[in-house]
Amino acid sequence: MSPQPDRLRLVLASRSPQRDALLRQLGIPFRVCVSDHDETVHEGGPTATVEENARGKAAEVAARVRLAAGELVLGVDTVVVIDGETLGKAADESEATAYLRRLSGRTHEVYSGLCLHHGEEARCGHEVTEVRFRAIGAGALARYLASGEWRERAGAYAIQGLGSSFIEAVRGDYFNVVGLPVRLLIDELASLGVEPLSWL
Amino acid sequence: MSPQPDRLRLVLASRSPQRDALLRQLGIPFRVCVSDHDETVHEGGPTATVEENARGKAAEVAARVRLAAGELVLGVDTVVVIDGETLGKAADESEATAYLRRLSGRTHEVYSGLCLHHGEEARCGHEVTEVRFRAIGAGALARYLASGEWRERAGAYAIQGLGSSFIEAVRGDYFNVVGLPVRLLIDELASLGVEPLSWL
Repeated sequence: MSPQPDRLRLVLASRSPQRDALLRQLGIPFRVCVSDHDETVHEGGPTATVEENARGKAAEVAARVRLAAGELVLGVDTVVVIDGETLGKAADESEATAYLRRLSGRTHEVYSGLCLHHGEEARCGHEVTEVRFRAIGAGALARYLASGEWRERAGAYAIQGLGSSFIEAVRGDYFNVVGLPVRLLIDELASLGVEPLSWL
Repeated sequence: MSPQPDRLRLVLASRSPQRDALLRQLGIPFRVCVSDHDETVHEGGPTATVEENARGKAAEVAARVRLAAGELVLGVDTVVVIDGETLGKAADESEATAYLRRLSGRTHEVYSGLCLHHGEEARCGHEVTEVRFRAIGAGALARYLASGEWRERAGAYAIQGLGSSFIEAVRGDYFNVVGLPVRLLIDELASLGVEPLSWL
């Protein structure tokens, strides 16, 4: 039950404006149906966490929303991992402070899970990207916290915002750090017979 | 003659909307004064090319425009390097086709030169980022060319546009590939006494 390439449309099961912007960047037609699925941290580690959360978001929307022919539901979940510990969104400014102090001057990993629901099937996978931070001084940390940008971001920073000033280097899929593993999405679509840019 | 941190403003000697967007992302106050300096390829290789072009752009604007106290002129130039050859902007669709076929399925380097003019002095440097492309099929190539996105882009692609569908991985400063070496800019500003985010 592959979708027809000329009718591809995604249903983005996320309220994230960053994921919305990346799908627009790719020119992929889509609509947004926010999922009610709760994000949780699984015992199986970051891979299990992001894949299960992505699967849960996509499955919840696929079960609730009437899909048109060719529509695929896209679920994504992103976390930051450092010292083997998984960091989601910071609950408050004090947790954001702790997260950013921990990331300062070091390399961490960003994991995203991606799940595409089509018909009765779901294709799920994950992507890992390394991000190296410069050392963040006390002044920069205070100004970043005051900006409020840390809210609703895994690891308490936005690489595509003021947080770009913290970045030394990225290794892998940059867009994965923004919140959508683009390479993996393109690969999964191709495996369903949807060639890159065929949606234009 | 260091600028006062509380009065930093950049004068961007470039018409590039990508560089404009990245300075906005960083929250750095700036105005645009497009340089008349002609980009050329220097015999000294890509490092000499991008540094000399960045220096030429910044110097031309610094000599022509009346600067307020604390204003620094920012010149930047970006090229793509593969097989030791420097690719600038493609002159036409046939050259864009040749560039993209060459980049397909391989790793290339993106060089940017950056020059900050302040008072009588100029601080110049360069950044190199590796970019790995997936293999681009004939259909995707044709659709990309038809989109026109290749125009005015070093190497005939925009990593922050439809060209994101070509990218397997990045190693280094992603923003450098977009057109502004952000890590280097932050370092150069810090060496002038302007700490990260102090401009907010």
